[in-house]
Amino acid sequence: MRGRLISVEGLDGTGKTTVCAALAARLEDAGVRVLRLREPGGTAVGEQIRGLLADPSRTLEPRTELLLFAAARAELVDTVVRPALDEGTWVLLDRFVDSTLAYQGAGRELGDDTAGAANAIATGGLLPDRTLLLLAPAAVRAGRMDHRGEAADRLEQAGEAMFARTEARYEQLLTEAPERVRAVDASGEPDDVVRLAWDATADLLEAAATSG
Amino acid sequence: MRGRLISVEGLDGTGKTTVCAALAARLEDAGVRVLRLREPGGTAVGEQIRGLLADPSRTLEPRTELLLFAAARAELVDTVVRPALDEGTWVLLDRFVDSTLAYQGAGRELGDDTAGAANAIATGGLLPDRTLLLLAPAAVRAGRMDHRGEAADRLEQAGEAMFARTEARYEQLLTEAPERVRAVDASGEPDDVVRLAWDATADLLEAAATSG
Repeated sequence: MRGRLISVEGLDGTGKTTVCAALAARLEDAGVRVLRLREPGGTAVGEQIRGLLADPSRTLEPRTELLLFAAARAELVDTVVRPALDEGTWVLLDRFVDSTLAYQGAGRELGDDTAGAANAIATGGLLPDRTLLLLAPAAVRAGRMDHRGEAADRLEQAGEAMFARTEARYEQLLTEAPERVRAVDASGEPDDVVRLAWDATADLLEAAATSG
Repeated sequence: MRGRLISVEGLDGTGKTTVCAALAARLEDAGVRVLRLREPGGTAVGEQIRGLLADPSRTLEPRTELLLFAAARAELVDTVVRPALDEGTWVLLDRFVDSTLAYQGAGRELGDDTAGAANAIATGGLLPDRTLLLLAPAAVRAGRMDHRGEAADRLEQAGEAMFARTEARYEQLLTEAPERVRAVDASGEPDDVVRLAWDATADLLEAAATSG
């Protein structure tokens, strides 16, 4: 039976990495084979592209950025994600196509059509079975990022107005694709966020158990 | 007055680099400011992408290849080509959008729609004012490439069937866009090829002189 594809989305500091790790553990406890991946990356060329994109000393045109993310995604989908799903492994993606719509389409103001066209080339139309959209107020996100102690990378330097557009586009997904995209309140303690994320995922497992 | 954009296209071994250098010299002799560029490359990130694409030890999915070429092109168009044209400089491109249609669309069999969509994102619709399509028989091309003494790079290893599809797509441009794309017989000696290339370009200079 084909695996399920789950993406975890949201602004930096919403706890995506923690949620991905916890969901993977709970799915494995339930007997599911799980592969966790991060975008951009997950392949040799994807990690090199990640390096180009994150370099804070570099300026990149918005369309260059869009196409580099898309190139890393194409390699990941064709060489890792599709083969895993085909052999019944569930795939957990830390960011996927909705990041492109939110960050490059809205944040960088390239527009939905251009961002969607890049997604279509990169994925050949593959969409997640479920997308968890982690939402937390700016103060909570900032606190988590300070705590991380990382230097701001190129994307994080882009400014508040860009992040406001990005967040608004993310939230629009909740009405555009309500069956696929579920909001997860990510403002609380890690255990609470993970529990809410699991509540928004578990029906996939039940459906898979019934049909398998 | 806005500069003119000229692209030089054709399979490897047709003499594109020689033609670009000679055309640049003749245009400069005629008082035109000229910028010669090669694709992929011409920017810092573009040269790094060129390295990823040419590495013979790497396998890349066809869509990854398409999107990496597109990313290099987006950066080149936005940061170099458009500003140069705007200030009246003529730009000579060693490969441009037609390479994508021919190599990735036809050669790699991604199709015209997908290749065209990547071009549209990368260029925002910018097309050359003139494209010289250099055509030479396989034996002539192979002789020039042997002479060059280079190890075959990843794209050159792709096989004869791919090159046949690529060449056929190139030749289709001659009927699709006869005003823009001109065939240049590239089977002869360098001086002859350059003369024919100039004959297929000089009307742009006359038109510019008249309108300027």
